[in-house]
Amino acid sequence: MIEPMGNQYIVARQVYSKNAFDEEHKKMQRYHKTILDHFRICCRCSSQKFKKIALSLFPIASWLPAYHLKEWLLSDIVSGISTGLVSVLQGMAFALLVDVPPLYGLYAAFYPVIVYFFFGTSRHISIGPFPILSTMVGAVVIKSGSTTDSEKIMAAASITVLVGIFQLALGLLQIGFIVIYLSEALISGFTTAAAIQVLVSQLKFILQLTVPSFTDPFSIFKVLESIFTQIKKTNIADLVTALIILIIVFIVKEINQRFKHKLPVPIPIELIMTVIAAGVSYGFDFKTRFNVAVVGKMESGFRLPSSPSMKIWLDNIGDAFSIAVVGFAVAFSVASVYSIKHDYHLSGNQELIAFGLGNIVGGLFKGFASSTSLSRSGVQESTGGKTQIAGLLSAIIVLIVIVAIGFLLEPLQKSVLAALALGNLKGMLMQFTEVRRLWRKDKYDCVIWIFTFLATIILGLGLGIAAGIVFQLLTIVFRTQFPKCSMLANVGRSDIYKNRNDFPEIYEPEGVKIFKCSSPIYFANIGFFKRKLIKAVGFKPARILRKRNIALKKIRKLEKKGQLQITPKGFIYTAGHIKDSDDELDNNRVEELDQPIQTTDLPFQIDWNAGLPLNIEVPKINLHSLILDFSCVSFIDTSSMRGLKSILQGFLRINVDVYIVGTDDDLVEKLERCGFFDQEVQSSIFFLTIHDAILHIWMKKNYIISKYNHNQEKEMKVDFTINTNGGLRNRDCQVPVETKL
Amino acid sequence: MIEPMGNQYIVARQVYSKNAFDEEHKKMQRYHKTILDHFRICCRCSSQKFKKIALSLFPIASWLPAYHLKEWLLSDIVSGISTGLVSVLQGMAFALLVDVPPLYGLYAAFYPVIVYFFFGTSRHISIGPFPILSTMVGAVVIKSGSTTDSEKIMAAASITVLVGIFQLALGLLQIGFIVIYLSEALISGFTTAAAIQVLVSQLKFILQLTVPSFTDPFSIFKVLESIFTQIKKTNIADLVTALIILIIVFIVKEINQRFKHKLPVPIPIELIMTVIAAGVSYGFDFKTRFNVAVVGKMESGFRLPSSPSMKIWLDNIGDAFSIAVVGFAVAFSVASVYSIKHDYHLSGNQELIAFGLGNIVGGLFKGFASSTSLSRSGVQESTGGKTQIAGLLSAIIVLIVIVAIGFLLEPLQKSVLAALALGNLKGMLMQFTEVRRLWRKDKYDCVIWIFTFLATIILGLGLGIAAGIVFQLLTIVFRTQFPKCSMLANVGRSDIYKNRNDFPEIYEPEGVKIFKCSSPIYFANIGFFKRKLIKAVGFKPARILRKRNIALKKIRKLEKKGQLQITPKGFIYTAGHIKDSDDELDNNRVEELDQPIQTTDLPFQIDWNAGLPLNIEVPKINLHSLILDFSCVSFIDTSSMRGLKSILQGFLRINVDVYIVGTDDDLVEKLERCGFFDQEVQSSIFFLTIHDAILHIWMKKNYIISKYNHNQEKEMKVDFTINTNGGLRNRDCQVPVETKL
Repeated sequence: MIEPMGNQYIVARQVYSKNAFDEEHKKMQRYHKTILDHFRICCRCSSQKFKKIALSLFPIASWLPAYHLKEWLLSDIVSGISTGLVSVLQGMAFALLVDVPPLYGLYAAFYPVIVYFFFGTSRHISIGPFPILSTMVGAVVIKSGSTTDSEKIMAAASITVLVGIFQLALGLLQIGFIVIYLSEALISGFTTAAAIQVLVSQLKFILQLTVPSFTDPFSIFKVLESIFTQIKKTNIADLVTALIILIIVFIVKEINQRFKHKLPVPIPIELIMTVIAAGVSYGFDFKTRFNVAVVGKMESGFRLPSSPSMKIWLDNIGDAFSIAVVGFAVAFSVASVYSIKHDYHLSGNQELIAFGLGNIVGGLFKGFASSTSLSRSGVQESTGGKTQIAGLLSAIIVLIVIVAIGFLLEPLQKSVLAALALGNLKGMLMQFTEVRRLWRKDKYDCVIWIFTFLATIILGLGLGIAAGIVFQLLTIVFRTQFPKCSMLANVGRSDIYKNRNDFPEIYEPEGVKIFKCSSPIYFANIGFFKRKLIKAVGFKPARILRKRNIALKKIRKLEKKGQLQITPKGFIYTAGHIKDSDDELDNNRVEELDQPIQTTDLPFQIDWNAGLPLNIEVPKINLHSLILDFSCVSFIDTSSMRGLKSILQGFLRINVDVYIVGTDDDLVEKLERCGFFDQEVQSSIFFLTIHDAILHIWMKKNYIISKYNHNQEKEMKVDFTINTNGGLRNRDCQVPVETKL
Repeated sequence: MIEPMGNQYIVARQVYSKNAFDEEHKKMQRYHKTILDHFRICCRCSSQKFKKIALSLFPIASWLPAYHLKEWLLSDIVSGISTGLVSVLQGMAFALLVDVPPLYGLYAAFYPVIVYFFFGTSRHISIGPFPILSTMVGAVVIKSGSTTDSEKIMAAASITVLVGIFQLALGLLQIGFIVIYLSEALISGFTTAAAIQVLVSQLKFILQLTVPSFTDPFSIFKVLESIFTQIKKTNIADLVTALIILIIVFIVKEINQRFKHKLPVPIPIELIMTVIAAGVSYGFDFKTRFNVAVVGKMESGFRLPSSPSMKIWLDNIGDAFSIAVVGFAVAFSVASVYSIKHDYHLSGNQELIAFGLGNIVGGLFKGFASSTSLSRSGVQESTGGKTQIAGLLSAIIVLIVIVAIGFLLEPLQKSVLAALALGNLKGMLMQFTEVRRLWRKDKYDCVIWIFTFLATIILGLGLGIAAGIVFQLLTIVFRTQFPKCSMLANVGRSDIYKNRNDFPEIYEPEGVKIFKCSSPIYFANIGFFKRKLIKAVGFKPARILRKRNIALKKIRKLEKKGQLQITPKGFIYTAGHIKDSDDELDNNRVEELDQPIQTTDLPFQIDWNAGLPLNIEVPKINLHSLILDFSCVSFIDTSSMRGLKSILQGFLRINVDVYIVGTDDDLVEKLERCGFFDQEVQSSIFFLTIHDAILHIWMKKNYIISKYNHNQEKEMKVDFTINTNGGLRNRDCQVPVETKL
């Protein structure tokens, strides 16, 4: 009955156990879809579904028609030109990591961008070579034993095609769902570590040192060791140029950021610095004067496609797979940073398809594996890029360099390239401040951040992100494995039950405990649940049961020997003393002691909480009803059911009534299906709410209620003590009997 | 106010939002233990704690004094002798897998048993060699390049000591907690697969074929291939002997099982068959007559201990670790089968310590790695073994064979050993029937069983159980990742809300939806939650908001141009028609369209669900309040908060009030700490129960309640429709205005 009266919550209905409720409100028979049904729906074909799939395969069909020409084009042009120049510079720099001529790095920054323009779903990432991927491809090149340039180019291109095939296959098989496991904390930790990896990988260009390439775990330390051992060989001219450029870039970027709304377009500082640096280097002939490393001889034009080498494929399947996964993971984590910032949808599978096709095309035309570079994507986004139009324009810049003006870059110092790349890492590195914030908000997320960061630094990007994902999934298990268990009590004398430790004024019916478990119960936490429950009630039911059964044996023995006489007034123990050997009861079968207590054959009842004859001692318990609040228990697996049942049996066998409240109907059905209920544990233990169970207990126990003794509601006292009329009670006359020595 | 009146549930209180409740019932300030506090408690020393640790290190101190001499001793003696004989037979058989003389298999069946007697916690498993472990040790022996017997013995003993050290270290570091991840379904699937592995490993002895040892994944298939390619070479005498023994053993075991309660002691059929087989083989000289493989020359006595080889250790750290883990996992999973059956506690860490010490001692005295054999443990338990007294007696039998009567076994056929081992696998293999039962009970558990079984068959025992554990943990993630989401409705017209699809007679207030999510919300399921919620309400809030904002722009434009006149009666649109270009609104910034609707500057209000002027169309929604039941949401991680907030914002911005009910207080505190609330999403959205929220909505919306129109309670109708007075309403005069064309 619902009665809205002002701000009043008034309910009057009968007390509902689950059975009573089901009796009154019949459920409908519902057909639940089987796994086969789901499969059928999934595989069903319709023209609409086909259209949707076709559209999702070509994201350009969605975003290009919605392009805001007037507002976005200028930004995209500025961004495209800036990104294009960085692409050129990075493409050349990273080609050195692969150990192929600079021109081939430009291919890697051209073909995949064109493909991504049509197939990609991120609007802000810049496709092209990525230092870590380049290093991994370089390792394959070294492993292949290639010596001439053309062999090296062939090895890099072959492995790139295989990487693309893997990515395409993963995308088509819809394995891109892995991206839902990349939480914000994980991505933040991973990209911060990746930024440090990039920083370290660029150090050798800034200092102009020769560092061998390492790909295995701990490579970052090996690179640093190699750098520090030869720190004295640093080319001061390169270092100074790099530092000057770095400082200028930082300052101008800060200005761009601060006067964002006043500047029509961010100052294209990378472009300006590159032009100046190339000019100065050429004008003053830095190469011969200071022995700095410059880009050097640039070839031009494109190469014809060639079929990849099967030998390289077979020898490097594992490497290709890890490059495919790392490339995708890096690109996707960077892309998702921007998609969160700018609030649009990324599709993991479509990204995989876009990268896969990009790498296949790129590899066939002799480029090497591409993904996205953190720094270059930073350029594209921070210079105002709105869509992949910027990406397309950057590819056109790369095209111009490839076919026409490449030679202009010949005098450029490599350290300038490195400094420009570093200038964009600030944002990623600043994520360190996340740690403190996360620690305050959520310890688990903070630990995920730190773990992923350390794993990525130590193990490298591929293994690091894998370790991070596994660790993160384990935290979900941990969170449910050690659930918060609490004791509830009535607060405010109505139907509200809250954690008893939180409120000073609580009302707890005597002999009743309410225990709440706030997670599903399954194999890994049933033990924890049991321990917490035993701690909450303060005793082990099994121990009590054994003690009672031992005591019962003694009483039986006394009775058999006629040493225990029953009078209407009580028991009289007639013999002198009990022998010690009787006390030990060594040969009790443990199994017997765990059985329910059988007293129906005795001519008297036993109240275990009262005094017992002689030296028979049984721990007294002040609990007659236990309410388990299972409203958070969303599932129980079959492994834990046995444990749960033995817990319930334990309490029932020592005459503690157990009530389970707040369960989902499906859960009860499942328990029934699994044969959970029997003579001892019955399905009548389920009640709808805690309050229903409390009221039921109240009625059952016939408590004397001193109702309305006081006028004030809060003062109302309820006598909830147990009716304890002596220890042993004569079954027939139901008169309390006393025990005498 | 609690009023128990018969079977009545009567509650009368005010409607509580969380804030109102907190206002009325002040919470206590509680000190929550920090991680440091927990660590301190964990490290605190006390004499009681010390005593407890000391006791747990020597489980014998607990169970030996409680030994039921009269009842158990006879069973233990029978079991000990039977097991001892099987130990002897298996020890010799498995020594062949390691490629050392049979005597050293007897050592492996002796030393660890003695150690386990003092340190072990399982009462039923038989310690000693295990075929898979023996094969793994054999692989190390082969890898070490040993040629002479003494070199091979040394290699096996050395690796065994290292295995023991790993196990001991894991036990002392309390890493035995991994055992809580071994669920019943996993153990059942794993032991079934292990039984098949054992079966296959024994085939070569039964058929008397020479099969090389394989250890890598797929080894079971390689062994089978090897057997089938040479099946014609089968020694028929061996096969026939094995089959006869197998059939007799099966039949007698069936008799033992069926007449369990009538037989004083199970018939020791293994013992009888061994004696007969050895006698017959000797008497008829099977070896020369049928060319069967016999045990052959037995040495006797013990060897002096020697220090292990460091070279073997360094070369095989990985192998030693996997042997340590597999050995423990196998033994523990078998032990837990019996501990569940006989209901006693196993300690994972203590088991590790016991096995570790056993292997260290065994290895120093030139035995090889031991664990438990499924079949031998089956013998020990099924012949009535009650405690490790049986294990001790079996060691004494082994001792007798080692020092005295070993030579008697020389004529015994190896195929007899194999047949006896197989005779005990029936129980394990019968676990196949579990699959059907599990499928009916719990799909997840069934899939875990099948996965673990297949992984163990295909990958071998070590990798198989690891894959099973990881898979099983992923199922926990999956279960919470795709939670059951349901729409609730009032059932029975009181304060009870259930799944609307389950009941034919439900009551749903118009314009109100109640959505329940039954799992924590975190990074991996926030997307799922959002999709389910959108499906449940039937529209995308963001889309509605954009449409409304576009419509508003049009109305503003009309108003600005003076084409919209406001009269007390309504709007009059004065111009002829709207240009098409106005319709497109190409240059809307998407960001703007997602902002909250600002209409305060307009001289009228807009009712979006009524008709709008001209061709302006906005989807109508029949939802004004959304209640999210979060009683099952035990935690929300920081990654998902942003998503949750954007969902709430989406609804609030289109004037749908959102209420969250049933949350834990801690969760709200955490949201506050993470800066979840602002001007839009306020902390006043929390209510104690669904019913509180419903009553609050009721009051807020000023519904006309036709109360007590009918006498019968169930017939009571509540008019819950929305008060819709026309499309645009003049703000100043609050008089409904009509739209005219």
